Amino acid sequence: MNHLIESLRRIVGPANVLTEGDLSAWENDWRKRERGKSLAVIRPGATKEVADVVRACAAAGVSIVPQGGNTGLVAGSTPDASGTQVVLSLQRMNAVRAIDAANLTITVEAGCVLQTLQEAAERAGFLFPLSLAAEGSCTIGGNLGTNAGGTQVVRYGNTRELCLGLEVVTAQGEVWEGLSGLRKDNTGYDLRDLFIGSEGTLGVITAATMKLYPLPSARLTAWAAVPSLDAAVTLLGLAHRHLGAGLTGFEVMGQFALSLVACHFPQQRVPLFQDVPYCVLLENSDHESQAHARAQFERLLETALESGCVSDAVVAENLTQAHQLWHIRESIPLAQAEEGLNIKHDISIPVSRIPEFVRVTDALLAREIAGVRLVNFGHLGDGNLHYNVQAPEGGDASVFLREQEARINTLVFDSVQAFGGSISAEHGVGSLKVDKLEHHKSPVALAMMRAVKRALDPQNLMNPGRVLRM
Amino acid sequence: MNHLIESLRRIVGPANVLTEGDLSAWENDWRKRERGKSLAVIRPGATKEVADVVRACAAAGVSIVPQGGNTGLVAGSTPDASGTQVVLSLQRMNAVRAIDAANLTITVEAGCVLQTLQEAAERAGFLFPLSLAAEGSCTIGGNLGTNAGGTQVVRYGNTRELCLGLEVVTAQGEVWEGLSGLRKDNTGYDLRDLFIGSEGTLGVITAATMKLYPLPSARLTAWAAVPSLDAAVTLLGLAHRHLGAGLTGFEVMGQFALSLVACHFPQQRVPLFQDVPYCVLLENSDHESQAHARAQFERLLETALESGCVSDAVVAENLTQAHQLWHIRESIPLAQAEEGLNIKHDISIPVSRIPEFVRVTDALLAREIAGVRLVNFGHLGDGNLHYNVQAPEGGDASVFLREQEARINTLVFDSVQAFGGSISAEHGVGSLKVDKLEHHKSPVALAMMRAVKRALDPQNLMNPGRVLRM
Repeated sequence: MNHLIESLRRIVGPANVLTEGDLSAWENDWRKRERGKSLAVIRPGATKEVADVVRACAAAGVSIVPQGGNTGLVAGSTPDASGTQVVLSLQRMNAVRAIDAANLTITVEAGCVLQTLQEAAERAGFLFPLSLAAEGSCTIGGNLGTNAGGTQVVRYGNTRELCLGLEVVTAQGEVWEGLSGLRKDNTGYDLRDLFIGSEGTLGVITAATMKLYPLPSARLTAWAAVPSLDAAVTLLGLAHRHLGAGLTGFEVMGQFALSLVACHFPQQRVPLFQDVPYCVLLENSDHESQAHARAQFERLLETALESGCVSDAVVAENLTQAHQLWHIRESIPLAQAEEGLNIKHDISIPVSRIPEFVRVTDALLAREIAGVRLVNFGHLGDGNLHYNVQAPEGGDASVFLREQEARINTLVFDSVQAFGGSISAEHGVGSLKVDKLEHHKSPVALAMMRAVKRALDPQNLMNPGRVLRM
Repeated sequence: MNHLIESLRRIVGPANVLTEGDLSAWENDWRKRERGKSLAVIRPGATKEVADVVRACAAAGVSIVPQGGNTGLVAGSTPDASGTQVVLSLQRMNAVRAIDAANLTITVEAGCVLQTLQEAAERAGFLFPLSLAAEGSCTIGGNLGTNAGGTQVVRYGNTRELCLGLEVVTAQGEVWEGLSGLRKDNTGYDLRDLFIGSEGTLGVITAATMKLYPLPSARLTAWAAVPSLDAAVTLLGLAHRHLGAGLTGFEVMGQFALSLVACHFPQQRVPLFQDVPYCVLLENSDHESQAHARAQFERLLETALESGCVSDAVVAENLTQAHQLWHIRESIPLAQAEEGLNIKHDISIPVSRIPEFVRVTDALLAREIAGVRLVNFGHLGDGNLHYNVQAPEGGDASVFLREQEARINTLVFDSVQAFGGSISAEHGVGSLKVDKLEHHKSPVALAMMRAVKRALDPQNLMNPGRVLRM
């Protein structure tokens, strides 16, 4: 191993091979679910260095854990506890390489922080629409590796849909020059989408060409009280029809989730629609004007009020109010944490089946686990719920988790599967859900995934044990 | 082989195993570039039958050519001349299985004709936006297999972006139940996008769940004269800013292409903007009203006229006029055929580089090949040109093709590569471009494609020789 470390020092420079001191920022996952130990943390500064690192590790039979901002929620980018894995941090490769305004594209290195990318786009007069809670520290490489979702998916899709081309270092340490600003390219298999969402198990994404959009002239936010989840689904259909592609956000929040925000962050002033089980946050982006956006929004909400799928609603009067409303939505996970340890499920279900899924699964959990409290919120426009489980009031949450987590996961995931859903909507598999995937994914799909993994990483050195056990 | 034929008759019924009579509809490709000879044409009626056929063929070591409407342009779905390949026609599997209105999805079998799918969506009050010249006879399975593009890609993406899930029979004859109405699902490798665009070389797509969109309230068409391709690119940028997602079509047409329509189809009355080198067809789809769409369009065109990137423009007064304008655009390939044999190039280039690409390549061809005539048109909004070459006026086109086609292809494709483009934007590779792909695709990408092919189809029985030579 000393020989390998020496080689790595030559490739990236001694200062960029970290083997001593506190490496917990790279070795522990963001949720502190896993504490790892690395052989070394390597911080290459260029694609060629990444390729050289991969070749050196492959020659030594040492496995590599690619890492961006280390903000993932499924322990997919941190080393295991063996002390034999190398963490390959892309953080130094953070350049915005080029913006092509007429082509509506931006080319960035993998370590570019999402917010930096958003700001570079905005300075050039464009929107880069990917937006999620960790945007101040997650990197575009990590977003691509996990096919991150977020709050604008209802209009712009996941990270996958925003990417036109990739530069990748393969498991053999070769550079695939797949950067491309083309919106149409039918020359063979879609390698780009194979790497996107593969969580570093097939190779290392080093750069990407991403789509840009014109900046909308106005973005308006509304908050609507809905009498049921069925009503929320009806409202979603009306919003699609009235706003078309203007509908850029559609978030649902259960009343208990909101009550946690009101309780732990009283300064946030949650709108007083406490007599309804759910509220919905809607965003309307408009290419014409603020006035037009408001008129469209008001027409939608009038129709919704008349039809009964909305019982009350407010449209934010200005940007500050809009931010306040979004901030309430984004504070739910923090309020949950304040309330105590909890069990998170990032699931998706066909939109049409969500109300029944929630009825059935709420009842099932209430029956099986006394006093359980459900924090249900998420991106209803994409069929994506964060269906989280809080320990009974006053109980010891860590005892509850120890005793009930496995059972609750099984109950929830079995129900998800019965409703045609996915046990990981936007967070990925990492190491936390590897065993669950084995259980819930079809054997035919798993066999094809293993065949692809063996084909592209025959030594099983790229982030082994994540996504798939080989 | 008799034993295999007997097995196939048992699986799909004797009437659905065609071995005699005129099979040219299945054996010859649409452009009549290749005349094949099949061992048999098999027409299964259900997914299980497809799986049984694939297993029977695999056991006999017989290769399979999946086929939809046989309207492809690159000879990718017809058998070779050996008489040893089975054509697997999906035409009988043409059901619309389900429409889920609240989920905005439709599930259809592979043999469903695109127009049937469009009409089923419209009857349910939705838009299925994929639209292309062959829509009356191509099938959604073929569209998926080739990742077809068409005229709405600027807003809705290629077939790939419209698909949420697939049902596939693998090369081993197993059924992958990958149908899904989920917009977010991060549970492992993206097998869906691997099959899309693989032209039947990895398995057989038997059904798909596709996205639906709300029907727009209005669709307006405009025709604009532009003084140059640079001006057309400027107009595209203005259209994105003014119309946002309302911009659902942006086609460019060179004056010579239009003159061929005017000459061969004089009844079509091409708008009289003959003093400009290019015209642009724009479409604006609106969720509000006809009046709003028109006001938006007029504001865009006024701005464009003032800035000089448009010299003249008309907005269609009604649906009939709009259809007439689109019909002119769609008649260009037919007018080309009337003019004589020609050489087609379906290429893409970053939008920003298209004007220079055309200047450089036009000049190169004019210098190298005396009297050459260029029919240039296409989906400028996607960077996709149909950059076609017509024989010199009055010459013998078949002699010209025989003597010049290879050389012209080389000149054009080398120029495409120099400009960071693709030699197949929306038509695929098939057998016509296999050798070209070998030359223009990066060796790293080709090696990964071959590894994936070997992993999923180790016997090389799925449409062998198309896309990749193994």
